[in-house]
Amino acid sequence: MEVKYKGIKVIGFDADDTLWVNETYFRETEQKFARLLSQYETENKVDQELFKTEISNLELYGYGIKGFVLSMIESAIDLSNGKINTATISEILHLGKEMIAKPVELLDGVEDVLRELSGKYRLIVLTKGDLLDQERKMERSGLSEYFHHIEVLSDKKEENYQNLLEHLQISTGEFLMVGNSLKSDVLPLVNIGARAIHVPFHTTWVHEIVEADDNNGGYHTIGNIREILEFL
Amino acid sequence: MEVKYKGIKVIGFDADDTLWVNETYFRETEQKFARLLSQYETENKVDQELFKTEISNLELYGYGIKGFVLSMIESAIDLSNGKINTATISEILHLGKEMIAKPVELLDGVEDVLRELSGKYRLIVLTKGDLLDQERKMERSGLSEYFHHIEVLSDKKEENYQNLLEHLQISTGEFLMVGNSLKSDVLPLVNIGARAIHVPFHTTWVHEIVEADDNNGGYHTIGNIREILEFL
Repeated sequence: MEVKYKGIKVIGFDADDTLWVNETYFRETEQKFARLLSQYETENKVDQELFKTEISNLELYGYGIKGFVLSMIESAIDLSNGKINTATISEILHLGKEMIAKPVELLDGVEDVLRELSGKYRLIVLTKGDLLDQERKMERSGLSEYFHHIEVLSDKKEENYQNLLEHLQISTGEFLMVGNSLKSDVLPLVNIGARAIHVPFHTTWVHEIVEADDNNGGYHTIGNIREILEFL
Repeated sequence: MEVKYKGIKVIGFDADDTLWVNETYFRETEQKFARLLSQYETENKVDQELFKTEISNLELYGYGIKGFVLSMIESAIDLSNGKINTATISEILHLGKEMIAKPVELLDGVEDVLRELSGKYRLIVLTKGDLLDQERKMERSGLSEYFHHIEVLSDKKEENYQNLLEHLQISTGEFLMVGNSLKSDVLPLVNIGARAIHVPFHTTWVHEIVEADDNNGGYHTIGNIREILEFL
């Protein structure tokens, strides 16, 4: 296979759904949330309303579990016309705490890949979740030894990546990003002249879905993270 | 005055209550929260219970407004024995959104000091709040141009500072921290051999208060941030 990834010095890995399972837990919690509200609305309607609330709060709350819980509480009050009881709100708070305390489930191949690459490249984690959550997951994952450090970005747009590379004092040509989200982990990098490898996860939050672009060789999509070794 | 701050290359500034007003807004919100619950408990009891809830959630939620709001909701349900109505819970959510959207009020002297130092030192912001909140405040503050970047730490203990200095590749002797919290911004730095200047703010969260230590010349306490110029 053609090696297109010459000159790479630093590899950034997205964390959630790239290194370990995450979105699955949000989906499970949404199902539990819909069940809590089943006397007021159908699961489909609950899903739709929660999503609307999350999006309208995204600018204020950002990404992560705490904002998600606040949006569930707001939606529960709206969807029930204020009739929801406080026991259900306590249950929603509890669902959030459960999510935060979840054990970390590594995705297949992750540890092998990191072990192989960690001596040869500077590996960092780039995430837009909550710093505390991400540090906790990193600790539980047992992967800390492979990474130089974690960077938490408030968003993963071109500008955020530009600022980050500047702050790390590395050029775009020396940087490769690996992640499951085309929108957040791949396209912004390709657009600023860095490289990216797309490793899709089976579940993607609707907000992260973008139309599949023409792939003009700007990035590769692989089925398992192990395949990145063939490019490096 | 004796110049004790030779060899400094990087200056870290705490943000909340060092660059701009913050704790005041938490105190105001706590007062509003106590008023919302006045039919159930005295203001003093509400304060105490909210503080207990915040501390017991601190490990899970970390610092910042979102965790504070989640703790207010939990306390409101507890303090009212579940009798709180959903309109009050909506009001608590609203108080949180108001806090997040607050304009930034710079503390006296801050801009003068940053203007004076920014050409001569690498200035960074070191905070343990929520990244999105802090970036938003930085943008609104108009101070971004003076800073190299923002670092958000999940906590401000010796270990967090050690990791940070390692990641920034600066030695402890080249680093000076400026902040309002003895516990978070001053003592951990002195303990690892870096320098620190303490600029107290009139309000300190109980959790941040430590017993005044013997000051063996390990750090200076000043009344206004302008005075740091005399040390540098």
